Amino acid sequence: MEAKKAMNSLTIMTEIVLPNDTNTFGNLMGGRLMYWMDIAAALSAQKHCNAQVVTASVDNISFENPIKLGNAVHIEANVTRSFNTSMEIHLKVWGEDLTQQFKYKSNEAYYTFVALDPNRKPRQVPPVIAETEEEQKLFEGALRRRQLRLILGGKMNPDDAVELKAFFTNKD
Amino acid sequence: MEAKKAMNSLTIMTEIVLPNDTNTFGNLMGGRLMYWMDIAAALSAQKHCNAQVVTASVDNISFENPIKLGNAVHIEANVTRSFNTSMEIHLKVWGEDLTQQFKYKSNEAYYTFVALDPNRKPRQVPPVIAETEEEQKLFEGALRRRQLRLILGGKMNPDDAVELKAFFTNKD
Amino acid sequence: MEAKKAMNSLTIMTEIVLPNDTNTFGNLMGGRLMYWMDIAAALSAQKHCNAQVVTASVDNISFENPIKLGNAVHIEANVTRSFNTSMEIHLKVWGEDLTQQFKYKSNEAYYTFVALDPNRKPRQVPPVIAETEEEQKLFEGALRRRQLRLILGGKMNPDDAVELKAFFTNKD
Amino acid sequence: MEAKKAMNSLTIMTEIVLPNDTNTFGNLMGGRLMYWMDIAAALSAQKHCNAQVVTASVDNISFENPIKLGNAVHIEANVTRSFNTSMEIHLKVWGEDLTQQFKYKSNEAYYTFVALDPNRKPRQVPPVIAETEEEQKLFEGALRRRQLRLILGGKMNPDDAVELKAFFTNKD
Amino acid sequence: MEAKKAMNSLTIMTEIVLPNDTNTFGNLMGGRLMYWMDIAAALSAQKHCNAQVVTASVDNISFENPIKLGNAVHIEANVTRSFNTSMEIHLKVWGEDLTQQFKYKSNEAYYTFVALDPNRKPRQVPPVIAETEEEQKLFEGALRRRQLRLILGGKMNPDDAVELKAFFTNKD
Amino acid sequence: MEAKKAMNSLTIMTEIVLPNDTNTFGNLMGGRLMYWMDIAAALSAQKHCNAQVVTASVDNISFENPIKLGNAVHIEANVTRSFNTSMEIHLKVWGEDLTQQFKYKSNEAYYTFVALDPNRKPRQVPPVIAETEEEQKLFEGALRRRQLRLILGGKMNPDDAVELKAFFTNKD
Repeated sequence: MEAKKAMNSLTIMTEIVLPNDTNTFGNLMGGRLMYWMDIAAALSAQKHCNAQVVTASVDNISFENPIKLGNAVHIEANVTRSFNTSMEIHLKVWGEDLTQQFKYKSNEAYYTFVALDPNRKPRQVPPVIAETEEEQKLFEGALRRRQLRLILGGKMNPDDAVELKAFFTNKD
Repeated sequence: MEAKKAMNSLTIMTEIVLPNDTNTFGNLMGGRLMYWMDIAAALSAQKHCNAQVVTASVDNISFENPIKLGNAVHIEANVTRSFNTSMEIHLKVWGEDLTQQFKYKSNEAYYTFVALDPNRKPRQVPPVIAETEEEQKLFEGALRRRQLRLILGGKMNPDDAVELKAFFTNKD
Repeated sequence: MEAKKAMNSLTIMTEIVLPNDTNTFGNLMGGRLMYWMDIAAALSAQKHCNAQVVTASVDNISFENPIKLGNAVHIEANVTRSFNTSMEIHLKVWGEDLTQQFKYKSNEAYYTFVALDPNRKPRQVPPVIAETEEEQKLFEGALRRRQLRLILGGKMNPDDAVELKAFFTNKD
Repeated sequence: MEAKKAMNSLTIMTEIVLPNDTNTFGNLMGGRLMYWMDIAAALSAQKHCNAQVVTASVDNISFENPIKLGNAVHIEANVTRSFNTSMEIHLKVWGEDLTQQFKYKSNEAYYTFVALDPNRKPRQVPPVIAETEEEQKLFEGALRRRQLRLILGGKMNPDDAVELKAFFTNKD
Repeated sequence: MEAKKAMNSLTIMTEIVLPNDTNTFGNLMGGRLMYWMDIAAALSAQKHCNAQVVTASVDNISFENPIKLGNAVHIEANVTRSFNTSMEIHLKVWGEDLTQQFKYKSNEAYYTFVALDPNRKPRQVPPVIAETEEEQKLFEGALRRRQLRLILGGKMNPDDAVELKAFFTNKD
Repeated sequence: MEAKKAMNSLTIMTEIVLPNDTNTFGNLMGGRLMYWMDIAAALSAQKHCNAQVVTASVDNISFENPIKLGNAVHIEANVTRSFNTSMEIHLKVWGEDLTQQFKYKSNEAYYTFVALDPNRKPRQVPPVIAETEEEQKLFEGALRRRQLRLILGGKMNPDDAVELKAFFTNKD
């Protein structure tokens, strides 16, 4: 299966925060944002593998700044690396107050999708070619994040998570 | 008021066609698409003028290819020219079947927005700097399209529509 | 195919403006209104041809008065004329503040629909019988509006648009 | 307070059954229909009293025929009678398969609304003038239905429900 | 067919009132609440009969207290009794202002569902075993409510409604 | 501030999977589920602290089984532990095919919410009293999960994450 460039999976989504997307403070609800991110990530994954995909997991997401009613929501999604039948997608989210020309970070996240064939069985996806420095950093980190996912899901012994351990040690 | 580049107003929106967006043939309803286009165009207009905006008019839209359930909808919106307190936005819409790597044109359209101040009165917007050849062509055509809008709205005498007349003659 | 009366296709739709239909000024978004108009027009077209229909095009729409949150939206749709496999629908839209007994015009528009057979091929639709004076005026104007649509869509040479030309001349 | 004609409160609503309105049989869900009926009835009540209104109660509704995906839903709402600060609204609902020219009854219902002043206190509403035979029949029945509502709500002793008793006796 | 316990059909639903669910007073619209109640009742009926179900009728509902924007809506649904192929569901609805620890009754209602086989024909449902005092009271009252439904639907002569008559007499 | 029992924050939500909630396989989209979970978790957090809350973060979520169109979705949310102004909420999600009496696990997750005062500043929340064995296990694990969140958010040095380290070691 021929490898594909990471940048070819770039998906850009822009939404506006409408009343029904907000909590009682008039800010975008976290759940509504995760819904949009899921769609942006699914489109990016489909662009990479040209197959139907389903959400397998979502990594830890931290919401930094509230996005206000009437503001724009910008989501950028990109495949970082593939693992046989799954793909990790990196998402960056900003809010923007267009009348005040004020753009602010909301969060960054990783979603994992699995490609399915028409019989709903997982199918092979192309490897990812990481070209830019940022793409390479995301590509390398993907291994470590996957180990954390497997440990948290009870599918890997912490002892075997070599890259994750190195990461914790490097920080010492 | 300082002029701003056309390209700075570029707004990219990506949506997925969900069941409730479709007619009985499983294709995106025209009305649902016009709703998304209105939001993309409003965001582009706001980017240009940094003010609240309202839809003033929509030009003739022709739907060329149906967009299918589960396909991606790509909308690109750009300010082409401004007229004192109003802005014309050019929109291009494609559908994409990601599993078959098949991208097809849906339509092209022009929406006009008016900028409002906090008291809901029309306010001045910056002129547009058209740089690329396409931007310049859109900038020039904007005058002719505006004359057609005014004539159709009963606000201009066909005789005074100099650019529009020239266009009809050129085609002879 | 037997002709059918224009008035038999009359479709009346009433909606209420809810928070999620509004922009930051608390007024109905243009896109949301075009969505409702599309559904009203589709129902009117179906009433006339008793077949599935799809939106082919929308003519220039000008929004005259904003419709406020909580106000009623009245839409009346009627087939004006048919052209082999397509039908032009005329729409009139009012807003109404029921607590103040204040009814105001929002816009008037023309949508064109194509009738499809179960294999999704265009199918013949019945001719329209225009009876009242207003129906006859709409019936006659339909030819001119169709020529404008074809010219704007690049499918007709302005020289061949006899009725449209006469219209421009009459206004001199 | 000047009485108003029943027919002036007529509200006509037309909707189309979209995928998200249906149950697993592809038929309109009862709850979704009651939602639309509530809005149609509220608009009719507002037309009569020119004030804000809130739903006070809904009488027994029986769903006779399922309305299918893609079919039209027709709702007609009319004030039948007012009781100091409340109004009874009569609703008739049909489904229509436009491609097969088949129109069928779905149900008939009575909603009761209370008019509120800006401080959210109940306010007087105009009496209803019933002119046609059907309007008069609905006007008279309103008293009996109101007694049943009050008994079912524990606010009236069955012994005092004179009209309701007569109705039961007449049927003997 | 083996009888099943009433309590096994208990369905608990919690919703939050979002902007689009509210009227101009910022309170939950009656129609939106009836929509949620319909879904809760359908799930309870399905739990009891393990078959697809459709709404057959809704009894008189009286709305006691408005539920405010941002408040929680609690719905509890339970099968009370079955009649060959139909089931009566009892619903209790509360609103709750969580920041003020204030819980208030909204309404109580009865929905009736019919179970369908895959060919959409009514199918037998299990009898209900009422154990607690409240369940037994609901079970007994179900007969009387059914007679009222049949009389109101024109399917029963008031003379034959033995239980309903006794109820009216007992109140004397 | 007086401590409150974990079990008092229990929030039960039941939803039904409608067409617009599904992907092209007819299964519930991950993003839609995260939206519902966010609302259930917010209600549980509000029950505990009796204040407005906003989503601060979401831990790794793994989707185990797809939930099908027409199936019920059961969500149970409970506060596990509070940390000054924030609360961790534990969520359990099941799907259920009611016609086949088949209930299956979808996922388990942890959301973190911050309580805000009317000026939108974080405010103190009550400590949690964990009584049952499961509650105590969740209470203890909350510290470890919080350390992981802080490390992943770049707000804690892995060396200082005593409980998290012990957890990794215990697994050896």
